[in-house]
Amino acid sequence: MPKKILYIKPTSYSTMNQETKEYLEKYKDDNTIVDVVNVSKGPKHLEALYYEALASTEILRLVKEGENQGYDAAIIGCFYDPVLYAAREICEHMVVTAPEESSLHLAASLGNTFSIIVGRNKWILTMRDNVDKYGFTKKLASFRSLDMGVLQFHAAPGTTEKRMRQEIALAIEKDRAEIIILGCTMQFGFFAQLQKEFSVPVIDSMLAALKYAELLVEVREKMNWYTSKIGSFTLPDRGEIKEWHIEEDYHLEGLWNERKDQE
Amino acid sequence: MPKKILYIKPTSYSTMNQETKEYLEKYKDDNTIVDVVNVSKGPKHLEALYYEALASTEILRLVKEGENQGYDAAIIGCFYDPVLYAAREICEHMVVTAPEESSLHLAASLGNTFSIIVGRNKWILTMRDNVDKYGFTKKLASFRSLDMGVLQFHAAPGTTEKRMRQEIALAIEKDRAEIIILGCTMQFGFFAQLQKEFSVPVIDSMLAALKYAELLVEVREKMNWYTSKIGSFTLPDRGEIKEWHIEEDYHLEGLWNERKDQE
Amino acid sequence: MPKKILYIKPTSYSTMNQETKEYLEKYKDDNTIVDVVNVSKGPKHLEALYYEALASTEILRLVKEGENQGYDAAIIGCFYDPVLYAAREICEHMVVTAPEESSLHLAASLGNTFSIIVGRNKWILTMRDNVDKYGFTKKLASFRSLDMGVLQFHAAPGTTEKRMRQEIALAIEKDRAEIIILGCTMQFGFFAQLQKEFSVPVIDSMLAALKYAELLVEVREKMNWYTSKIGSFTLPDRGEIKEWHIEEDYHLEGLWNERKDQE
Amino acid sequence: MPKKILYIKPTSYSTMNQETKEYLEKYKDDNTIVDVVNVSKGPKHLEALYYEALASTEILRLVKEGENQGYDAAIIGCFYDPVLYAAREICEHMVVTAPEESSLHLAASLGNTFSIIVGRNKWILTMRDNVDKYGFTKKLASFRSLDMGVLQFHAAPGTTEKRMRQEIALAIEKDRAEIIILGCTMQFGFFAQLQKEFSVPVIDSMLAALKYAELLVEVREKMNWYTSKIGSFTLPDRGEIKEWHIEEDYHLEGLWNERKDQE
Amino acid sequence: MPKKILYIKPTSYSTMNQETKEYLEKYKDDNTIVDVVNVSKGPKHLEALYYEALASTEILRLVKEGENQGYDAAIIGCFYDPVLYAAREICEHMVVTAPEESSLHLAASLGNTFSIIVGRNKWILTMRDNVDKYGFTKKLASFRSLDMGVLQFHAAPGTTEKRMRQEIALAIEKDRAEIIILGCTMQFGFFAQLQKEFSVPVIDSMLAALKYAELLVEVREKMNWYTSKIGSFTLPDRGEIKEWHIEEDYHLEGLWNERKDQE
Amino acid sequence: MPKKILYIKPTSYSTMNQETKEYLEKYKDDNTIVDVVNVSKGPKHLEALYYEALASTEILRLVKEGENQGYDAAIIGCFYDPVLYAAREICEHMVVTAPEESSLHLAASLGNTFSIIVGRNKWILTMRDNVDKYGFTKKLASFRSLDMGVLQFHAAPGTTEKRMRQEIALAIEKDRAEIIILGCTMQFGFFAQLQKEFSVPVIDSMLAALKYAELLVEVREKMNWYTSKIGSFTLPDRGEIKEWHIEEDYHLEGLWNERKDQE
Repeated sequence: MPKKILYIKPTSYSTMNQETKEYLEKYKDDNTIVDVVNVSKGPKHLEALYYEALASTEILRLVKEGENQGYDAAIIGCFYDPVLYAAREICEHMVVTAPEESSLHLAASLGNTFSIIVGRNKWILTMRDNVDKYGFTKKLASFRSLDMGVLQFHAAPGTTEKRMRQEIALAIEKDRAEIIILGCTMQFGFFAQLQKEFSVPVIDSMLAALKYAELLVEVREKMNWYTSKIGSFTLPDRGEIKEWHIEEDYHLEGLWNERKDQE
Repeated sequence: MPKKILYIKPTSYSTMNQETKEYLEKYKDDNTIVDVVNVSKGPKHLEALYYEALASTEILRLVKEGENQGYDAAIIGCFYDPVLYAAREICEHMVVTAPEESSLHLAASLGNTFSIIVGRNKWILTMRDNVDKYGFTKKLASFRSLDMGVLQFHAAPGTTEKRMRQEIALAIEKDRAEIIILGCTMQFGFFAQLQKEFSVPVIDSMLAALKYAELLVEVREKMNWYTSKIGSFTLPDRGEIKEWHIEEDYHLEGLWNERKDQE
Repeated sequence: MPKKILYIKPTSYSTMNQETKEYLEKYKDDNTIVDVVNVSKGPKHLEALYYEALASTEILRLVKEGENQGYDAAIIGCFYDPVLYAAREICEHMVVTAPEESSLHLAASLGNTFSIIVGRNKWILTMRDNVDKYGFTKKLASFRSLDMGVLQFHAAPGTTEKRMRQEIALAIEKDRAEIIILGCTMQFGFFAQLQKEFSVPVIDSMLAALKYAELLVEVREKMNWYTSKIGSFTLPDRGEIKEWHIEEDYHLEGLWNERKDQE
Repeated sequence: MPKKILYIKPTSYSTMNQETKEYLEKYKDDNTIVDVVNVSKGPKHLEALYYEALASTEILRLVKEGENQGYDAAIIGCFYDPVLYAAREICEHMVVTAPEESSLHLAASLGNTFSIIVGRNKWILTMRDNVDKYGFTKKLASFRSLDMGVLQFHAAPGTTEKRMRQEIALAIEKDRAEIIILGCTMQFGFFAQLQKEFSVPVIDSMLAALKYAELLVEVREKMNWYTSKIGSFTLPDRGEIKEWHIEEDYHLEGLWNERKDQE
Repeated sequence: MPKKILYIKPTSYSTMNQETKEYLEKYKDDNTIVDVVNVSKGPKHLEALYYEALASTEILRLVKEGENQGYDAAIIGCFYDPVLYAAREICEHMVVTAPEESSLHLAASLGNTFSIIVGRNKWILTMRDNVDKYGFTKKLASFRSLDMGVLQFHAAPGTTEKRMRQEIALAIEKDRAEIIILGCTMQFGFFAQLQKEFSVPVIDSMLAALKYAELLVEVREKMNWYTSKIGSFTLPDRGEIKEWHIEEDYHLEGLWNERKDQE
Repeated sequence: MPKKILYIKPTSYSTMNQETKEYLEKYKDDNTIVDVVNVSKGPKHLEALYYEALASTEILRLVKEGENQGYDAAIIGCFYDPVLYAAREICEHMVVTAPEESSLHLAASLGNTFSIIVGRNKWILTMRDNVDKYGFTKKLASFRSLDMGVLQFHAAPGTTEKRMRQEIALAIEKDRAEIIILGCTMQFGFFAQLQKEFSVPVIDSMLAALKYAELLVEVREKMNWYTSKIGSFTLPDRGEIKEWHIEEDYHLEGLWNERKDQE
């Protein structure tokens, strides 16, 4: 049976969906099917905490819809890992991954220290809190900023790559990084060339999330290991959701109907 | 000049607004004016991460509206401190506080160790991550759960108080807590009696947030100390917000118009 | 009722008491009364651990005398926060604050990272241990030293301000500090100009301690939240103190008489 | 192309190799080939640090031989993860995984807290140091000991399962564990029944290591992400090894010949 | 040349000096000479932070006098390690040790986890902060309280030993302590019997400080390793001390005269 | 009775044994007897994790032989502290020390921050994990690399000293190190000159281990404090070792015979 994976772009434009899909398909497992969707309204990047909050309801709608449609996994496509834990909470069968968590787990098994290349210093707050939350603070060599916004990365790829090259060189030499993580999914497409030049693993966080999604589906299928539902990630109560008119008020009609396999 | 404070209930019912207002007024500074509002749609409690995410857009709308209306401070009335940092990011003049941050700061100046009395074990994930994020892990004696939901606290206050009494006794005796924090704003009203019985400070987190709000307004007024806007909490770009139709799409018409004082 | 606050200068000269009083009065709450006293003997600065230890008995005498005289709060005016916890232990009604604790708490609510501007590298040991003890290590961007002694700060204010400017610029640019803390009460008077230039909050630790003192008196008055006396800060035994002739031997006659309100 | 994985039993008996192979084959990816080997001499369990040290040369011989024979991955089959980092250091192409690292990574993506069920308290030192080293201390709910030796687990499976059941119940109830990890590869075979009973993920560490091995081969194949060889895990110098007669003295003839693909 | 060591009792009674001296002489190196002195005024125990502060000036006087009299080492005889760092700061040649620091260093080389048996819960604040400051938090299994005051320990030794036995048994069984530390110098004399009964090292902190003192003298004599005087522990300035009349005001006449060996 | 100490060189050459013995004899206690042995096969330096693992069986053989021959202490002469804990586990009477543990303990009592001068960046992984494991992370100012291999240190001592001088100067000035630790036993012989030049303690780790060995023998002799054998360091079972033919298979004939004193 194929692994059906839904890549959720939390930004409100679809122009790069096809390119993203093709990119993911180049790296996916043969047995994996990937679809790409984007939120239908909201910011075009999530650099601000405000934008992240605005996008959260839409992201969670797409997550739950994905589960209802039979996807095996959803990827929340932003390195802030927005609402990752909430997404795990509302799912009953589908796994959810996100770029930062996935990248850090992989990096921790490939070397001893890593640097994260960010667009702006502003991003570090959330990403650093995540490094702490996930447990990898000791392995963090540095954050290094390109002083570029998300939307600039693919506007002038040559410039972007040049700036990355400068910061990666410093991360390796000054901060003793053994691994480089590109700290934004929109930095996709650059890793292969850079890792060849520097002879260190350069983690493309979009692909890290893809591979971690395939892993989590795999362990669910084979060993039945799935998000623990007894503690932090207990499913919200369907009765409450219906009673409070959440579906109507948030344009989520039918989202929380009982799952057929449970009837 | 009075300090105008807006208490934001992130749950979609207004039945307790008046009671909350009166409660806050009993403890406020003479010079403080308090108003209470609630979100207009969404869950009736935020025990689930999902509910917290659903409420976030509404909370931030009320925060920014509050600022536009000339409030000096907003309090986000939930011990998860939902979107506290995003709220600080979007404000230019108004201060924002929340119950957990405020309670922990106060507890840390009143004793050496504290226990947090929660409703359910499920809450601990978010609250514990906040304790870490704010820096008070070393002073955390324990979480102790009442095994009660938010909406039950005031349904049968006698039972609630009895359960609190049991867990507070254990927190003091077994966990060596010197301070008790009631880990939900809906545990308001119980602290005075309990602290008399146990002769330890029992922090009511709603009131802690009120006093911290007054403090932050005070330091803004007197010393001009206000949220640093150069790093993590830089204001989002008004141009982007307008360009992306955020206001229209999220029913926030006019929310992000230029502030008059800046024209 | 007014809040009566006693500012204790732990250094043995009175020449700046009036200036300090006037400075504090500029920033205090209308309802606050401030007095300034200094220890009657001992060092003129506390840069050495030895000097801090020498000053401690005198500081604690002034604290307890302050309480006996009816003050609501005492501020121990040195950024090492000397004997802060002992002062809380010996008080039964009066609150006690100190500059480092107060500054760190405020900084933590105003931004994500802070740098502390110290006079000499030697100071860092104690201040860093306090940062750890209070819980704010994760938010500490850096210590930066002016290579100046306490007594030089006001000798040539122009030079001092220039050196501060240099280090603040580096703290912001290199260490990503969002908040600056001036790590000595004798750096008072500089913050307003510097914060205007750099557009970041510059915390004057003397004023931070003042505002925190007002807060702690406020929560004591309104909610009866006061230093927990059941654990670390249990009051020493008056019987022992009398029996051991502590008052006579330390020139503290009558200091430990029973409080009238308890007779 | 299939993924060829070598499972290395670091204990000197072969009686369970076939059973282990069949067990792994039940859970492997279709595209994976698994072989099981054991060290040819040394202890029959690694409960003592001494035994772990004795086994290390043999383990590393099998690792390097495996690489020379064209395996894509090796699994070091002991929850102490003996010489995992040394194994990564000596490999140039083959990936290496081990049960504790793999189990912790998976657990961290499936829940918020985990307990590790060990045989004896003595094991905790090494495992706890690994939890710290890998970064998951904050998520560790507890270690719970069965008071049984490795070789007893399969001697009387009924007793073992009963003891596990008791400790898992306590881990969930008292320690708030959301995930259970069976802290010894020789606890294989028990997880499915236990996880059904308790409705929480019960991680079989042998299978966790298998799935992590498949993942690391996958990311190597698709993205060329492989152990960083520029820092901690730089390959030892073949010239030195030859010059020092390491191969002769340790019965490793030919082990360090130049790899054909590099000629 | 003999090692001359001064044991400083920071409590104002001399009745146990001879017993303490004889006790230390039983365990000292042949080449060591031990003297015991006590502070001439102040509290009779240091359980309160206040008492610790009161004693500090006297302790430091005895330390500096000891150095002036040619002692090689001073031991500050209280498990709070009062003014240990200040004592190191004011010395130029004499080494200083204290019971908690010494006990923790030894325990860390003898096992993996330790429990500290204290008299009262109140003591834990300071001792725990020291465990953190010295770096041994990870190895701390527990504090266990006898609910007894310092002055009771030798009043009814049989009762004391019985209570110790109870708590040590729990520390080993429940907290998995591998080492026991008796957390008060006044618990001297009990360790030998208890360690025989429990077959674990039971650290007598007075003797630990003695042995650490001998070690630090040894490394000073042989390798010239002595307290670094370039940073935190730079010597206070004699000129200042004279100018400020510290000696006169604190009854320390001649204490800070230039050392002869430096003239 | 003399203290008999065995210094174990974990590298397979004997050419420097005599020089090492003479060096240790210059600094030992009068009452100490020192012998130096080296492993009989294996690498000539332990810079690689692989080499460390290869050497471990030989090191442990020499340790246990040393105990059987009546030595009071063994020193494992490499700053990685290879198999230190395993060595403590297999001993019943002899104490074991190692350079990193000993150096860190001493440094922590001599100052507030230390820098470790290493040969290559590659070494930092293991040494840093040890700093964490032993508890001294907070005091670690920096690692600084000479970019030299172990075998080069004494090949051109002038060059080595010059490089050390450069890095020590930076450690003191930039990293605020108060203590310098030479992070390799093969950096022996340089400390005296360097510490004279820089006026800070420069720890020679070989000598630190010697002095710590003398200390641990001392506390064993006087107070019977010896490695706790109830938990992590319980002795392996002689019966198992015999039954598994460990002695024959590892050329350790008679190593694990019952100790005479136990018959």
